[in-house]
Amino acid sequence: MWKTSVSKVEPNHIITRGYRQEDLIGNVPFTHVFFLLVKGRMPDEKEARMIDALITSSIDHGVTPPSTHASRIVASAGVPLPTAVAAGILAVGDVHGGAIEQGAKILQEWVRLMHDNKWSFEQTAQKLLEALKKEGKRMPGFGHRIHTKDPRTKRLFELAAKLKITKDHIKLTLAIEARFAEKKPLPINVDGAIAAIISDMEFDWRLGKAFFLLGRAAGLIAHVYEEMTTQKPMRRMCTQEAEYDGPWEREI
Amino acid sequence: MWKTSVSKVEPNHIITRGYRQEDLIGNVPFTHVFFLLVKGRMPDEKEARMIDALITSSIDHGVTPPSTHASRIVASAGVPLPTAVAAGILAVGDVHGGAIEQGAKILQEWVRLMHDNKWSFEQTAQKLLEALKKEGKRMPGFGHRIHTKDPRTKRLFELAAKLKITKDHIKLTLAIEARFAEKKPLPINVDGAIAAIISDMEFDWRLGKAFFLLGRAAGLIAHVYEEMTTQKPMRRMCTQEAEYDGPWEREI
Amino acid sequence: MWKTSVSKVEPNHIITRGYRQEDLIGNVPFTHVFFLLVKGRMPDEKEARMIDALITSSIDHGVTPPSTHASRIVASAGVPLPTAVAAGILAVGDVHGGAIEQGAKILQEWVRLMHDNKWSFEQTAQKLLEALKKEGKRMPGFGHRIHTKDPRTKRLFELAAKLKITKDHIKLTLAIEARFAEKKPLPINVDGAIAAIISDMEFDWRLGKAFFLLGRAAGLIAHVYEEMTTQKPMRRMCTQEAEYDGPWEREI
Amino acid sequence: MWKTSVSKVEPNHIITRGYRQEDLIGNVPFTHVFFLLVKGRMPDEKEARMIDALITSSIDHGVTPPSTHASRIVASAGVPLPTAVAAGILAVGDVHGGAIEQGAKILQEWVRLMHDNKWSFEQTAQKLLEALKKEGKRMPGFGHRIHTKDPRTKRLFELAAKLKITKDHIKLTLAIEARFAEKKPLPINVDGAIAAIISDMEFDWRLGKAFFLLGRAAGLIAHVYEEMTTQKPMRRMCTQEAEYDGPWEREI
Repeated sequence: MWKTSVSKVEPNHIITRGYRQEDLIGNVPFTHVFFLLVKGRMPDEKEARMIDALITSSIDHGVTPPSTHASRIVASAGVPLPTAVAAGILAVGDVHGGAIEQGAKILQEWVRLMHDNKWSFEQTAQKLLEALKKEGKRMPGFGHRIHTKDPRTKRLFELAAKLKITKDHIKLTLAIEARFAEKKPLPINVDGAIAAIISDMEFDWRLGKAFFLLGRAAGLIAHVYEEMTTQKPMRRMCTQEAEYDGPWEREI
Repeated sequence: MWKTSVSKVEPNHIITRGYRQEDLIGNVPFTHVFFLLVKGRMPDEKEARMIDALITSSIDHGVTPPSTHASRIVASAGVPLPTAVAAGILAVGDVHGGAIEQGAKILQEWVRLMHDNKWSFEQTAQKLLEALKKEGKRMPGFGHRIHTKDPRTKRLFELAAKLKITKDHIKLTLAIEARFAEKKPLPINVDGAIAAIISDMEFDWRLGKAFFLLGRAAGLIAHVYEEMTTQKPMRRMCTQEAEYDGPWEREI
Repeated sequence: MWKTSVSKVEPNHIITRGYRQEDLIGNVPFTHVFFLLVKGRMPDEKEARMIDALITSSIDHGVTPPSTHASRIVASAGVPLPTAVAAGILAVGDVHGGAIEQGAKILQEWVRLMHDNKWSFEQTAQKLLEALKKEGKRMPGFGHRIHTKDPRTKRLFELAAKLKITKDHIKLTLAIEARFAEKKPLPINVDGAIAAIISDMEFDWRLGKAFFLLGRAAGLIAHVYEEMTTQKPMRRMCTQEAEYDGPWEREI
Repeated sequence: MWKTSVSKVEPNHIITRGYRQEDLIGNVPFTHVFFLLVKGRMPDEKEARMIDALITSSIDHGVTPPSTHASRIVASAGVPLPTAVAAGILAVGDVHGGAIEQGAKILQEWVRLMHDNKWSFEQTAQKLLEALKKEGKRMPGFGHRIHTKDPRTKRLFELAAKLKITKDHIKLTLAIEARFAEKKPLPINVDGAIAAIISDMEFDWRLGKAFFLLGRAAGLIAHVYEEMTTQKPMRRMCTQEAEYDGPWEREI
């Protein structure tokens, strides 16, 4: 007999984390129920507003991200909507949404070190970046191919401040950004912002991709539906400029 | 040049269905943004409450549904969280969540016929069931393996009534249920309820699985996370009582 | 207790369709074992050569098909190899590989009708195309965006003839091609060829996508591996010329 | 312009790794073409027989492995065959097939160390196991839940010996097994055997899961097809003995 603490189903009776599902439906907003599902307790009012904002900040970023692109391509091949959406979710990987997970892991580790050693934020930021550099790694969640100032980061951090959610992980993230700015500005992107905020909300870094995935699912549904209803099947969605550089034609 | 009306991304500027993403984040609840994403306009207050309830009603139904089961099994094989969640979403199929799509399609077709022919709800329910019977089909969205009275259906229909969303598709669904009750009760399940409500909300039936998928994604994340953090890899999750009935052992 | 006739596993003893797996390994070529797996019996020598050829004919078609494109995009997001390959397999849909399934279904149905009614191939081809036209459908497996004469079709049909596998389904396919040629040539593509051949080999049309999927898996692995080892993560793989035509910027 | 050396497609002309696809079809067995696809050159006769055996050894292991189980569950939800097969492929993870990748990586690293330091196989096996132990890790590819002597391992190693493919990676694997046997026998399982053989064949360890995936795809197709054609949709496939240990019922 194995244990689960997520839910229990009996005839005419469905319990989710201790609550009757009929009590949740229409009374507790969906994203708050998501908080309940992963945390095991209801969010307070501030947490509730913050988690909704986090998920909304991941909904969509146009047609070019791997997740959206994969979903539209698979949709164009004539498959059910969930199959196409799932293809996009498969693209939530170490370099697409993964900065949330990796960033949160690093932040959580270094805030612990900071407390243990009574370092300042500036000291910690400096040591953290040196340590990463030594390993030949970069701090995830900074810089963006398109945005020099990610509008989602600004909005999320303002909200976190207003809701008094800002604690040491956000502060350390800002200290890292300040450190970068001394040489060459490398602004916090939306992944970096989410990594910091979920860490200040005491979420396990292993859930990092989950917030992104859930928000993005909404956008993927919209893209897949648009593809299915307005575009020709198997259309040429984009121009791949690939050149063959394999062996010259030969006999078997 | 192909067209999309979902979103537009420029440096430091992200537009979703006409709104700046930073305006949506934290101001418009996620499920209302989902309505915006698929409908192209903001929900009014009643639609907003209803869509949130619909999505919440799909979050979870214990460990046995194909979606949850598939996600946990794939998670137990040692893969990233999004890969395991996507496996569960692949299981949103014609017999798992599919009753929403098929049910909505039938309801939308027969409400049109009802109006065209000025039939009563009772007449329409009767004709609809006879037509399905002739094709050897059953009305999707009725009956449940576990629940004789699905608590989610009751809650969703009460809410639809309270929000004055109830229109002809819900009424026809109730007429069908009444018709069944004359012989042998076959109650409306949660899929049937969602099918009726999204039809009264004027959603395309082809989006039927999307509501279920989005809600279920939240539950799948919780199950995958629990599996990853509390269970042994590749554990024996369940007892398959399969018996080999193929050819007897033989030589090549 | 449910039944399976695929395999049976006991300590130190693995039976597949009646054969000990250690007897199959290295003695019976993989594609012949695949025939065994889906048919339940060993192929004869001709069937064996034919099925291997069918699967090989699906391995790859450059970087542009939805399957390959989806796999490479998902690979570029930083996920395990199987996750990226699976994303490509999800793209094996009704309009990408699906012509095998649909074509085989139609051919099998009309060869039955031909026999029942003692029609000639020419008559059957004519009636079939008229029937499809009436339904507003096209015959799957004919025409190709790139090839006017698909080299794989030629090779597969030559092999089928040489192996004396050619029977009524291939003949009907050729009669359909001849019928098209009277107006405007629409050559049999590789899907149409596979549909005809598997039908002459007495495969269930519901397995149509399986041959394509298995062959394509090999090509997807090669593309995913190349992407992982030679390209930058999240690179811009292609140019999407999408234009936003949604609502003008507005306030919430 | 980016480069690919896999294939090139022009009107009526398809080149795979330098060969015309019509030359490969029916002339070069599929698994040899797979070797060509991932290695970029044709296998010699011995390599050709070996790679076919490796892939065949992964086809199937009954209904209980995560890959097969996931495929059947997803199939039972009413989805297209490729969607269900892909769900199984998603389950090829770090603890299901992953021992090939991890085992090959370790073997390749330690054979290099062995050569550099002129250690004997026995010394290398000892040092390797000590190093893993220090890191709290176990050697992947040893031991099996069901088999005390995996019949596939025996067969694959015999074939490797016969084909003179056996080199230092297989020898080191045997030395590790001997080392285990001194205390408590922990036999090489099929993953361990494949890891050793592909290493002796000079395959990149990052391809480890690919051999397993390709072989298993054949078995998954057979299971999905059997599920679709012989079982009821959404049947109860197995008994999950899960007990809810979450919070007691409570009010929102």
